[in-house]
This record gives sequence, structure tokens and C-alpha cells, in this order.
Amino acid sequence: MVPQWIIEKKRDGHILTDEEIRFFINGYTQGTIPDYQMAAMAMAIYLKGMTPEEIAVLTDAMMHSGAMVDTSSLTGPKVDKHSTGGIGDKVSLILAPLAAAAGLAVPMISGRGLGITGGTLDKLEAIPGFNTNLSEKAFIDIIQQCGFSMIGQTGEIAPADKKLYALRDVTGTVASIALITASIMCKKMAEGIDSLVLDVKWGAGAFMRTIEDATTLAESMVRVGKAMNKGMVALITDMNQPLGRTAGNALEVIESIECLQGQHAASDLMNITLALTAEMLVLGHKAATVEEARGNLEQIIASGAAFEKFKQMAALQGADVSSLDDLSKLPQAAIVTPYPAPTSGYLAKVDAESIGRAVLVLGGGRQKTDDVIDYAVGTSGLAKIGDKVEAGQPLVTVHATAQDKLDQAMAHIQQAFDIVADPVTAPKPIVARITG
Amino acid sequence: MVPQWIIEKKRDGHILTDEEIRFFINGYTQGTIPDYQMAAMAMAIYLKGMTPEEIAVLTDAMMHSGAMVDTSSLTGPKVDKHSTGGIGDKVSLILAPLAAAAGLAVPMISGRGLGITGGTLDKLEAIPGFNTNLSEKAFIDIIQQCGFSMIGQTGEIAPADKKLYALRDVTGTVASIALITASIMCKKMAEGIDSLVLDVKWGAGAFMRTIEDATTLAESMVRVGKAMNKGMVALITDMNQPLGRTAGNALEVIESIECLQGQHAASDLMNITLALTAEMLVLGHKAATVEEARGNLEQIIASGAAFEKFKQMAALQGADVSSLDDLSKLPQAAIVTPYPAPTSGYLAKVDAESIGRAVLVLGGGRQKTDDVIDYAVGTSGLAKIGDKVEAGQPLVTVHATAQDKLDQAMAHIQQAFDIVADPVTAPKPIVARITG
Repeated sequence: MVPQWIIEKKRDGHILTDEEIRFFINGYTQGTIPDYQMAAMAMAIYLKGMTPEEIAVLTDAMMHSGAMVDTSSLTGPKVDKHSTGGIGDKVSLILAPLAAAAGLAVPMISGRGLGITGGTLDKLEAIPGFNTNLSEKAFIDIIQQCGFSMIGQTGEIAPADKKLYALRDVTGTVASIALITASIMCKKMAEGIDSLVLDVKWGAGAFMRTIEDATTLAESMVRVGKAMNKGMVALITDMNQPLGRTAGNALEVIESIECLQGQHAASDLMNITLALTAEMLVLGHKAATVEEARGNLEQIIASGAAFEKFKQMAALQGADVSSLDDLSKLPQAAIVTPYPAPTSGYLAKVDAESIGRAVLVLGGGRQKTDDVIDYAVGTSGLAKIGDKVEAGQPLVTVHATAQDKLDQAMAHIQQAFDIVADPVTAPKPIVARITG
Repeated sequence: MVPQWIIEKKRDGHILTDEEIRFFINGYTQGTIPDYQMAAMAMAIYLKGMTPEEIAVLTDAMMHSGAMVDTSSLTGPKVDKHSTGGIGDKVSLILAPLAAAAGLAVPMISGRGLGITGGTLDKLEAIPGFNTNLSEKAFIDIIQQCGFSMIGQTGEIAPADKKLYALRDVTGTVASIALITASIMCKKMAEGIDSLVLDVKWGAGAFMRTIEDATTLAESMVRVGKAMNKGMVALITDMNQPLGRTAGNALEVIESIECLQGQHAASDLMNITLALTAEMLVLGHKAATVEEARGNLEQIIASGAAFEKFKQMAALQGADVSSLDDLSKLPQAAIVTPYPAPTSGYLAKVDAESIGRAVLVLGGGRQKTDDVIDYAVGTSGLAKIGDKVEAGQPLVTVHATAQDKLDQAMAHIQQAFDIVADPVTAPKPIVARITG
């Protein structure tokens, strides 16, 4: 096979064979197909698309380019969740212990934050002592002991994706449904799971700006998972405003623990978390319906079992668990300043991107992959769209470690809110459920 | 400016600005924009196209990436011809001395053959002593003395094109009207000419397989030349059968000399050559109409001035001119074998590609750029479409230096001809004239 003939075939809108796709991905991984041929191919895929069958083969080829987690020693249904990422998205910290407490095995391999989007590993590492860098053996051992573990990549999972993702970033080929689907799914499928629930975000703080685009991506990922014989459900959820009331690492740990304890949970966060976890339970045959699953989950929270499960995992991963019982032991920022509502009325906009940028300039995120994160900073007590507010009432509280960073953050915070005179309806946290 | 943003703009079908195109080509030439970004851009250009204005800027940017010939010391109109290439295309060897004898300055920079397509430099080098590797000063001096010179590149003309052409070859982005136009025109415009006549071939032996595709390319090149204030005319000519009666380097020199002397010229070759040269004369204000120009050219041939002009140039470029008066001094092949017509009838097909492949396997062309050419081999006495033939009559004569190569060539020759019972109309050598 000749690489440029395969490029030409896709360029002309034809369907590539299984062998052609695997030849291209294997060659690219091994370096016999250079970056420039992959770049031309990526642009051809971007502009001509791929069929669901082609995307499934691409995903499988990229998955087989590297290591796979061996979960064969785990008993019980292995189910995970993946989110396309957003501001204040601490769902994994609540969902994973809930699903484990309900009897699932959750082998959750997560990533770090970049730009305005946070990462689960960074949030967990805000807990003193928490170790996300475990061997595969330790990972499997912890899942066997407490039903779940939350870590970063063990072996080199999907090196083809790592190379291709960096190339797409500089060749204008990021926003391709085929390439996004394969990139996400090749890594999740390498986890050795039976089923996967997808949280596909839409809106101003998400990669997919419209419900239509988010739905297209969700349908593509669900199709690929099903083609690989996995149980699949995707929910399309709102990311126009941040999820819950906090953004920033330690602050999100605190909000997650409050949710696990059944305290003052923001309704959008709990709605989405319970809906996603319920889908996992149904896929893992721990409940017949999502309604039944949801009842079970609420009982697990009320019993204290959810929080206990989280502490059990944290202890196994080296955390100082006393910091979870006494949250004042978590990193705290020196400057805590509320941002008051300039007028009275109803909140019409709480812009996720502006809040994300505020957290980033506070030091709670990364501009570059090697930036060091300040776990203490962020925002809390965020008002939500539809809230009735009085002039002077705090719309959000900013946690900063230095005055100049606070000032920079406040410039973004001021952009985040619109207050109008007439009542505003709160957005629906979940707008669609995709099953195939 | 950020390269990937410019790629994304073209990917989305938008029109690039002058600055964006120049930034990209300059960056690519200097190496600050890597191959993989150029590959993605080339695929985006292939699939989304460029406006005539964008192509003109691309051409100008690529032209300015390297050296330009300084023709300011030449008096009189500077006019050249470019052909998109084909089998048996020795037009330049006849046209250039004719145009010079008619009073034009012809600074002709030509290329070498690759694959089944021959090259003017190789044909000239079949003449003992002929030197195509001259300095720019020698080139200009010879044009001042005899009105024309025929050489290879002097300085590094259009290095951006050299890099981009090699990249397009391996990334499935060769057949783009925008990229072909810029590639051809940037090199011709660097010759410092006032006007250019284009011979755009269509058919089985040409890059453009249909009249429509050839016309689209011709229109694009004429538009770009006019945008750069050059006089431009393109003729769309037939390349389904080889041009004239010979293919192969020394054999084509012999046919060219016969044409310059007004002897037994194949009608398609002389029609096309005189039509192209006449267009050059009109563009260079040496004649008011192509009819008038054609009359002048026929007179120049009849007077012997055309052949004298060719000998004058050859002598200035180091050739042993006695070989032009005694053609037996040109390289000759040991084995000369006619291919007889298998049946009687009318020739319906004389496939240019098959004849080209025969010459290639005989050693008269290059499979790779560093292959050494055998000037003596090739084909002569080719019958033409529409000819009435008798069984056993030679359809072509094959000149070979070894029996095994003759056998390989004959396998291609057998594929070249179709003989039918009913009369066949000869194809029109010139199917269209494009002026804007």
C-alpha cells in the first residue's frame, strides 16, 4: 500500500478499507508515514468525513497502537464515564464513588486540565497526599478492594492519538467529528470496560457550541462504542454556565464532598451526576431502570456510604483522609472576595468561559502543559441563571493568593453576568439522551 | 499571524488575504512553517480551491521565493512558450528558432523528462556537445546574439515551488488547479518575459485527461499571467496520440530539424507549432494577426532562416554543428525494428501513453530523476489516427540498443494501436484558444 494513494482515496470522498486505515495508523505510529502525510490525511478526513464503520476501525487501530489495561481479574460489570470537559465539572468525584458503592467496578483513567477546562487529576491532587500516579497493578488492586480507582495513564495508552492530537492542534484539523470520536474512544476503550456513559457538553464553555454539534459527536461516539460491543449511553448537558457552585481545584473537592454527604447540592450538578450514574447502573445491570437506579443512589448518599466509599479510595491512594473530614485542612487562599451584583433583577447569563478564564488567571489552571497549579484558588458560591438577585448580593466569591491576580480575575468575572428585569427560566441541565 | 489559523480559514472555504498567502509561502520557504502545516494547507486548497486573485498572489509569492532572470538588457519583446507536457512534444525545438528568426527575444528555460513525459533539455543534449547548463550571463549574451537560448535553471528559481512540488507528490495534492497554476506560472514569470503562450495538452497522454479540465487549467494560468500584466494566450491541443512521428531524444531532434527545413513534417506537429509561434508573434507585436504571422513563419522556414537560426544557437551553446548537417552523427540505436500492422483498416487509436511507456523501457526516459538517458532509442515513422493501413505495413519503427528492452517495448507498442474497418476522422490538433 502507498500512503498517498490512501490519502487520495479519502480526498476524493471514498470509503477507506479496514486494511488501509490500519496501515496508515500503524505507519504513523511507527514513523514510516511522516507527519506531513498524516496532516494531509487529517485535512481530507476533516473535509470529507468518515462513515461510522471507518471511525470504528480508526478507533480500534489507534487503541491497538499502545498499551491496554488488563481488567480481566475484576469481577462484576466494569463501567466508566467520560466527559467532553467544561468549567466546574467535578462530576467524576461524585459519580465514581457512587457507582462503586452501588456495586460497579469503575476503572477511571482521567486527564489534567489545560486552558479554561479543569482536569479530574488536578482536583484529586488538591487533597494532601493523594497519588494519581499508580501502576496498573496498584490500580487493579484498589478497584478490587473498594470498587473504583481514579488515576492518570499507566502504560503508554494510544501513542497514535498522542502524536495525532499534537498534529491536529497545529494543522487546523481539531474539530473533526471522526477524529474527535476516535481520539476520545480509543483511550476509553483501552481501559478494558464493558460499558461507557458519555457526558457531552454543549454551550459557551464547551468545545461543542450548539446542541446539534454535541448531538452529532455523541451519536458518533455511541455508534463506535456499540460497534466495539460496549454498552453505550450519552447525555447532552448544559455548559453555558459552570456546573455547580465552584470552579477551582480544592473548592471543587469541597463541593463534591458536600454532594456525597447530601448537603446543599447545586441542582444542576446533582441532576447531571445522578442521571449519569443511573445510566451506568442500568448498563451494568445493577438496576432495571434509571428511575430505580436513581432511587438507589439517593439512598446510598443518605446512608453515608457514598462519602465513605470516596474516603476509602482516597486512603488507598495515599491521601491524608483527615483533610476530607476537616475541610479546613485543604489548601486555602489568603484573599477571599465576593463580587456583588451591580443591580437587582434576574440572572440571564453566567458565562462559563469568563469564569474559566478567571480561574486560569488566578493560577488554578494551566496555560501550558508544564504550568504549576495553585490548588487553593478559584470561585465559590456561584449564582445560577434564573436566580433572583438583589443589588449588592454576592454573585460569586473569588479565592486568590495575590491582589494582582484577583484584579485580573475580577476583569473576567465582570464579563460573566447579565442581570435583566424580567424573570428568566433556568436552562435544562440535560437536553438529550443518545442511545444509538 | 498563526499558521493554523490561516489553514483553518482556507479549510472553511474563505478567501485568504495577500498577507496571509505571502506569510505562509515565506514561512514555508524559510522553514518556519513545517511540511505538515503546508501539507494540511495544500489539502485544504485542493478541496476548497482558490480565487483567481488568490492564485495570482500565490504565484507571485512563490516566484519571489527565489532568483529571477534579469532580462532588462534585452531589447525587443521577450516572449516564451510553455507546454504542460506530452509524448513526442518537440515543439520548443522548432518554435524557439522560428520566433527568434521572426524578431522576438526568447529566453527559454526548460526542464528534463520524468516518467513517460520527455524534456526539452534531454532532447537538446542528444546533440553532441550541446550545453544546457549556462550561467545567466551566458544565457542573456546568447539571446542578444541570436535572439534565443534554451537552457536549464540558472540560479535557484522558485525554491518554494521545488519544496511544495515534492510535498504535493506524496500528499495527494498534485491535481489542484490552484497549485498547478502557481507551480507553472511562478517559474515562467521568473524568466522576465513580457508575454507567454501556453500549450495545454489534453488526452490519454496528458496530465489533463479531458478538454474541460485542460480548459479550466488554461483559463486559470491565463488569468494569473494577465493579473501580472503579461500578454497571454493558451491553446488546448491534442495529446491522445503522440505529437508528430517520433518519440525519443535524438529521433525528435531529427524530426525537428526536418520541420525547420520544411521537409515531410507531420501535419499535427506543424499545425500546433505554427499556431503557437504565430500567437507569440502577435503578442510580441511582430504581426497584426495570427494569419499574417503564420505566413511570415512559413516564409522563414522556406528561406532556410529557421534552420540557420537553430544552428547558430546550437553553435553558441557548444554543439558540434556538423551533426545537424549530417544527422548520422547523432546517437543511433543498433536495433531498428518495424512493428507491422496486424490487419488492414483505419487507425482508430494510437495511444500516447503506450508509446511513452515503450520509450521509457527502451531507456529513453527516466523512472527516477537520477536515471541516465539513452539518447539513441525511441520510435519513429509513427502512423497517425485516421491513417489507412495495410496488414504488414509498419505502424511504427522501434529503435533499441538491446533485444530484451526491444521485447519489453514491443509489449507496450502492441497495446498502442486499434485498427477498425470503417474510415476514422483524424482528431483536431487544436481544440480551443483561451485568451482570458
